[in-house]
Amino acid sequence: MVANNLLSARTAQTEYQKEPDSYKKTTERKGYTLPDIIYFDNSATTGIYPEALVAMNDVYTSLYANPSSLHKMGSDAEKVLQRSREIIARTLGASEQEIYFTSGGTESNNWAIKGVARAHKKRGTHLITSATEHPSVMECFKYLETEGFSADVLQVDNEGLLCPETLAARVHGGTVLVSFILVNNETGAIQKAEELIRVIRLSNQKTLIHIDAVQAYGKIPLNLSRLDADLVSISSHKIHGPKGCGALFVRRNTHILPVLHGGGQEKKLRSGTENAPAVWAFAVAAEIIHRQMEMNRNNAAKLKSTIIEGLKQVFGTGQYAVNSPDNGYEGIVNIAFPRVKAQVLMHHLEAENIFVSVGSACSSHKNTTSHVLKAMNLPKENMEGAIRLSFSGMNTEQEATRFLEVVQKIIPVIRY
Amino acid sequence: MVANNLLSARTAQTEYQKEPDSYKKTTERKGYTLPDIIYFDNSATTGIYPEALVAMNDVYTSLYANPSSLHKMGSDAEKVLQRSREIIARTLGASEQEIYFTSGGTESNNWAIKGVARAHKKRGTHLITSATEHPSVMECFKYLETEGFSADVLQVDNEGLLCPETLAARVHGGTVLVSFILVNNETGAIQKAEELIRVIRLSNQKTLIHIDAVQAYGKIPLNLSRLDADLVSISSHKIHGPKGCGALFVRRNTHILPVLHGGGQEKKLRSGTENAPAVWAFAVAAEIIHRQMEMNRNNAAKLKSTIIEGLKQVFGTGQYAVNSPDNGYEGIVNIAFPRVKAQVLMHHLEAENIFVSVGSACSSHKNTTSHVLKAMNLPKENMEGAIRLSFSGMNTEQEATRFLEVVQKIIPVIRY
Repeated sequence: MVANNLLSARTAQTEYQKEPDSYKKTTERKGYTLPDIIYFDNSATTGIYPEALVAMNDVYTSLYANPSSLHKMGSDAEKVLQRSREIIARTLGASEQEIYFTSGGTESNNWAIKGVARAHKKRGTHLITSATEHPSVMECFKYLETEGFSADVLQVDNEGLLCPETLAARVHGGTVLVSFILVNNETGAIQKAEELIRVIRLSNQKTLIHIDAVQAYGKIPLNLSRLDADLVSISSHKIHGPKGCGALFVRRNTHILPVLHGGGQEKKLRSGTENAPAVWAFAVAAEIIHRQMEMNRNNAAKLKSTIIEGLKQVFGTGQYAVNSPDNGYEGIVNIAFPRVKAQVLMHHLEAENIFVSVGSACSSHKNTTSHVLKAMNLPKENMEGAIRLSFSGMNTEQEATRFLEVVQKIIPVIRY
Repeated sequence: MVANNLLSARTAQTEYQKEPDSYKKTTERKGYTLPDIIYFDNSATTGIYPEALVAMNDVYTSLYANPSSLHKMGSDAEKVLQRSREIIARTLGASEQEIYFTSGGTESNNWAIKGVARAHKKRGTHLITSATEHPSVMECFKYLETEGFSADVLQVDNEGLLCPETLAARVHGGTVLVSFILVNNETGAIQKAEELIRVIRLSNQKTLIHIDAVQAYGKIPLNLSRLDADLVSISSHKIHGPKGCGALFVRRNTHILPVLHGGGQEKKLRSGTENAPAVWAFAVAAEIIHRQMEMNRNNAAKLKSTIIEGLKQVFGTGQYAVNSPDNGYEGIVNIAFPRVKAQVLMHHLEAENIFVSVGSACSSHKNTTSHVLKAMNLPKENMEGAIRLSFSGMNTEQEATRFLEVVQKIIPVIRY
């Protein structure tokens, strides 16, 4: 009954039409008031939707039982998981039986890659990925080499894209897995997934395909009833859901081993007490961001063009560079300033309450030249002073204009 | 600055002296009002402390940045992690450098066992555990057998305890790891940890020792400046903290490999965006439960004795059995009713709004005789109709009395 109340309360919440405004109100009450800060680091993490926070609180206070408990309070919590699974599945064009909840993108990537490689080791030990992957993919490939696998890391073109012909030529009878990132977290480059999958299938029907869609999910359309990937990783905190929560799509009949062993939750494939409050909030966030996708993309496209056009007007040729491809995801803009130290730029922006990334936040506290930009084989001036701006539906053109004003003021001061 | 405000607000919160009451108020507002339900399933999971929920909400609304982001918002979030690490370390008598945050008890157990076994494989492949472990330990041992390790599973006495002499005799030069549960999740039996550790060290100084303290942490004293374990797993949702959060204590200079690879968070040992809101709430809950430990134990002891004495008065010999040892953790009482189906009993109790466990909730949806009770080699009548009651500081003697009344009414009806 509580589960039903909670689930129907959800329907009322979908009436909300002005999420960006209500979000602002929430943050205004707290330390970082929005008139003060410009948060352009949404690919690192996002602020939670107030609706998602309310949803999480509801489960914590009314349905806190363990979903694996056999009593009614447990089965009510299990219903919340089930409903969340249906919602997430729907946003992906998948079946609810294909959605497995995890602790986030890193675990999803680890599980997909190690779980499939180990499960199919008898068929082969050859793995393929790209040189522009997120560390949670790259490091799994490196680790699997210690378990006897060989990892083939493909180069990309200067837009960061894999070449279908090169990929096709590398897939052979012993290739058990190809893994690639759909929207690159540093540049927004979108891999030509359909084309890549087509050529992999032609080379070896049995090769499994994993897509790291952590930066793509909720940002660009992703329909797994059409896109023929076997495994897809998604994360909650990149779409204004809670942290510590994500999911792995595992297409029906895909053989995969667990990475976390134990009580046999998630159909014996991912053990650990199910995080029903976070999962439910993830589903609420997923519903909202999918409803707003077009609006958010249009908004991001405006900001991207304002910033790129603005830079062109403010700076001369050779004074700045844009590393994000024109047709990439609109919400990620990677720009570089030759003879500027990226971190110095970042801190000067921060002093003006503008928050951007140097490379990505995902590589904890590292401060080296981005492996993604290196792999794109860009000239030196595109790598110096490279920062990433990443937008959400809450960012405004006013903020983009303010960024331009501040950059125009800072760059001449910090250029060496 | 926001981090400082948030951290000092914390001090004000410790003024709260009446957490149980304030907790009740929170739940009363929601579906499961406390006058209605008797929640005796606190070893499966607990209701969150309102203070922990507030703490989590605070981080979500004011400090949502990625702690790995290099800008100030990121480093403010990193400060929250750091402060949480200090608090958790203090409750364990450990150093903050020895605390690594994870997604929960299952991940902590998986990481400790697999991470240490793999890291020390060159030294040996022999592993030891007990027959009464949680599935997240047992299943790791089984899995490691597929990686070339041999797992020695020791029997226990009829109180569920390991025999130090037997253990000492099994540890040899090739034994890389011994893992045991400190407070058993089904019976509350407390292993004689100091004695067990002493004999392991005498047999092989290099053997690493892991303790699954998920049911012990915050419930019984655990001081790692005195107890010489190398690795200790703890979980947040078992102590009224949020779900999806836990920690692994790794003693300084212990060599361990990661299980989740990626961006290199947690000193390169546990990758994945740090869940600062949950971690902070975990620390808040840890502080509260440690302050209340003695009060909670006294309360649980009263409930345990009320129930055991009450059963003695209501039922004759052979009509019920107590499987929890007298000197076990007071908050877990495992009782059995011969010729009663445990699940039938559980559902009849549930109809009276009393929530108990059949075995443990941790084995998802399983309905078989408990491996813990089997390992204790108890007579058949101790296994039939076995249920687990597990208390928190919020449970009252009134509830224990009500349980007795209901059981007295139900048992004759459902006994076959």
